[in-house]
Order: sequence, then C-alpha cells, then structure tokens
Amino acid sequence: MKNVKALIFDVFGTVVDWRTSVIDECLELAKANNIHADWGQFADAWRAKYGPFMNKVRTKELPWTNLDRLHRMALDELLSEFHINTLSEDDKHQLNLCWHRLHPWPDSVSGLTQLKKHFLIAPLSNGNLALLTNMAKNAGLPWDCILSAELAKAYKPDPDVYKMAVNLLGLQPNQVVMVAAHQGDLRAAKKIGLKTAFIPRPLEHGPQSNPDLKPDPDFDIVASSLDDLAKKMASQFTHTTYTG
Amino acid sequence: MKNVKALIFDVFGTVVDWRTSVIDECLELAKANNIHADWGQFADAWRAKYGPFMNKVRTKELPWTNLDRLHRMALDELLSEFHINTLSEDDKHQLNLCWHRLHPWPDSVSGLTQLKKHFLIAPLSNGNLALLTNMAKNAGLPWDCILSAELAKAYKPDPDVYKMAVNLLGLQPNQVVMVAAHQGDLRAAKKIGLKTAFIPRPLEHGPQSNPDLKPDPDFDIVASSLDDLAKKMASQFTHTTYTG
Repeated sequence: MKNVKALIFDVFGTVVDWRTSVIDECLELAKANNIHADWGQFADAWRAKYGPFMNKVRTKELPWTNLDRLHRMALDELLSEFHINTLSEDDKHQLNLCWHRLHPWPDSVSGLTQLKKHFLIAPLSNGNLALLTNMAKNAGLPWDCILSAELAKAYKPDPDVYKMAVNLLGLQPNQVVMVAAHQGDLRAAKKIGLKTAFIPRPLEHGPQSNPDLKPDPDFDIVASSLDDLAKKMASQFTHTTYTG
Repeated sequence: MKNVKALIFDVFGTVVDWRTSVIDECLELAKANNIHADWGQFADAWRAKYGPFMNKVRTKELPWTNLDRLHRMALDELLSEFHINTLSEDDKHQLNLCWHRLHPWPDSVSGLTQLKKHFLIAPLSNGNLALLTNMAKNAGLPWDCILSAELAKAYKPDPDVYKMAVNLLGLQPNQVVMVAAHQGDLRAAKKIGLKTAFIPRPLEHGPQSNPDLKPDPDFDIVASSLDDLAKKMASQFTHTTYTG
C-alpha cells in the first residue's frame, strides 16, 4: 500500500445514504401534493430498477444513456405502478433530481477531509457527472475531481470504467484504492489491479434488510466507516502530505 | 445572464501565472544542477511550443496525446535547443510536472471562492485531468469538478470541447459562462452559445510583452480580476445561493 496516490469511491450506499434521503424528499412532496404511499417501499422499488435499467445500456437495448435519464425512465414506470398520477412535470423533474441531493453518512465528510490531506480523492460512481457534482456541492463532499462512469460511457462493473479512472488520473492501477460498500464493485476493480477497501454499510437498504457483509478475504482493507478508513490509511502513511 | 448556473474557466494565464511559476521551478533546478540559461526565455520558448504541438494532434499528425505528454515532447526539444544535457530522467520528469504546480494570480482563489457560492465552477482547460486536479490541490483552487479538453479528446478552440462541457454539466449553452484571458477561446465558446467573460491578464507573457487587451465588444462581461468578476456577477444575482 506504500505506492497509493489516490482513493476512488463508490457513492450510492458507500458515501451517501440514498434510502433515507429519497424517502425524506418523497415525504415532503407527498405532503405538498396530498398523496399517500409507503415511501420506504417506493424508494426500494426505485433503487431496484437501477440494475435492470443499466442492463438495458449494457446489452445495447438502449444507446448510452446517463443515470439522470435512467432514473427518470424508472420513475415514470414507478409512478404508474404506484398509481400516482397527479404530479406535474416540474414535480417529477424535481423529484428525479433528489439523487443530486442525497445526504452523506455521518462519517463521510470528516473521513474524506482527513483522507484528502494524504491522497487524491474522487468518486467513481455510475451517477452522471452533473449528479455527482451537484451532490458534492450540496453535501460538502470535498472531492479533488469528479470521476463518473459517464466518462467511459459504460457502467460499473464494466472494466472500462476502472481503466478510464486510472488512466485519467495518470496513475498505475496499484496506486489507486477502490473504496466501496459493495463486494462486486471491489472484485471488478481488483481484476484491473486496483487495491480495495471494503466499508460495510449495514443500513444501506434500511433496518429490515439483511445484507451479506462478510468481507472477501482478498480485500486489502476492511473499515467500519470513512473515519475508520482514514485512521487505517494514516497509520500506514504517517507524515506524508499529498504532493502530486 | 439571469439563467446562468455555471462558470467554466480557461486556466493557463487566466487563473494561474504559468510564466513566473515555470521560471521559479527552473531556477531551483538550475541551482541544484549548476546549469545556466535565460529562464524567462526558456519558459517563453516552452509555452511557444504549446500551439504547434497541439496542432500536431489537431491535424492528426499525432493520435490523441494529452498535454502532459505534449509538454514532455516539447521539453525534450527545448533542452536540446538550449544545450542542456546533464539532467537525469527523474529531473526531466519532475520539471515537466511543474505545470501541475503553477501558482494562481493573487485574486484567483478569493474570486473563485466567492463565485462558488452562487455558481457551479470548473476549469475548462487544455490541461489534462490529472494536471488540473493536482494544480487545484496544490494551489487551493476550489473547483466543483474538473473539466478538461482531454474528456473530449480534442483541444480548444475545437467546438467539441465546449459542447462536451455543457453536455456533462447537464445545462444549456446559455446557462454557462466561459471565462478567459484569451479572446479566441471566448469567441469559440460564443459560437456554441455560451456567455463570455473576458479577464485581461497584461502580465501573462511577462513585463516586456505587449498583448492585445482591447476586448471584443460582443463579450458579455469584462472584469479586471476574478474578484472583480465575482463582484460583477454578484450584482446581478443578489441573494441567490447555488442549489443545482
């Protein structure tokens, strides 16, 4: 790990709590429009469409389509499935942008701020560049630059996404750590030669969920939060400051 | 100008003082290696090769090549022209990276910090993404994201570069202001429909130079510094805070 220059982060679930944030925005909209639904179920159903919609791009059923547009296609299906038909176009547009306003986990901003002193830090998310940039601005995420799957016109875990990130950073794969709450993301990064850090997020899918959090023994680091990751990385890099 | 959401900035000359920064790094290296040259002339000659080397990419004499690599090709020519042949490979590599460590003009960090409250701010430079990211980290430039010509695999003033930026930001051209000290950059942005802000930088090419600073009357704003730009933009946007 002595060669590491940069850490790149999965975002949805790893850095931000998408579920609670989406539910909160739905509750606000529901109040203003006098509509009723199980918004936890709604948020879970919206997220459940994420994989299938990206698959339409992966299988070329759809041409390259960024995540804002996939989220909107999924939302239109979802509103119909939930029999919600009184929202204006502007309401739907604003609701779709709730993914730009997701809230960080309590340890995210402080952990990233610590890590930024010693490393280049960037998201590497399937979210599009505008989504990730607005999210950082809203949530105070102190990224050094924004890396998005959109720049490779492919979705993780496609190897082209990790290769694009390493290439744009001007680094070798083993100088970069992929940080994620999802083991598939880390395994795909590891195949390209990146280092891996697993951050289990037991509450990502809500208090009722039962995710597999037993880490693959091949990961380089397991940390309980981004603060904990900063502590573990710092113990290996005492006194170094990032100088490019 | 009421629709403006984002400001994108030319960097070399507009945000950072490349000439003084390059001279300072050369002087340090010269002292350590006991070599002598007119380093002002050296910096000017290095920069003078910038256009011709990008032209090799524009005319497809070279395949897509990022600016770090073009800078290095130019440096190798230049060292030979200046009969400097005692530098190690590591010295040459480190000298080439001086473009990652350029110093901002005195008004740049404060002006950008003000503008960031009201707008999304990003560079749009021919510098590659790693160069711009390292420069921001070294100089404390508070960009929201890094936009580089490298993402379009074309060099400004190619229209594809401005189109890429607008597209990745998810905005319309008239919601974006191009900010630059170079009128050709602004004219190219204007052709795509972007708004334009001209910041003359009379010292970019040193105290002996005599640049044409008479602004094209078609530019939307002329400001004497980034602080002045922040003041002029704020007068049109009182009380608005960026919300995406």
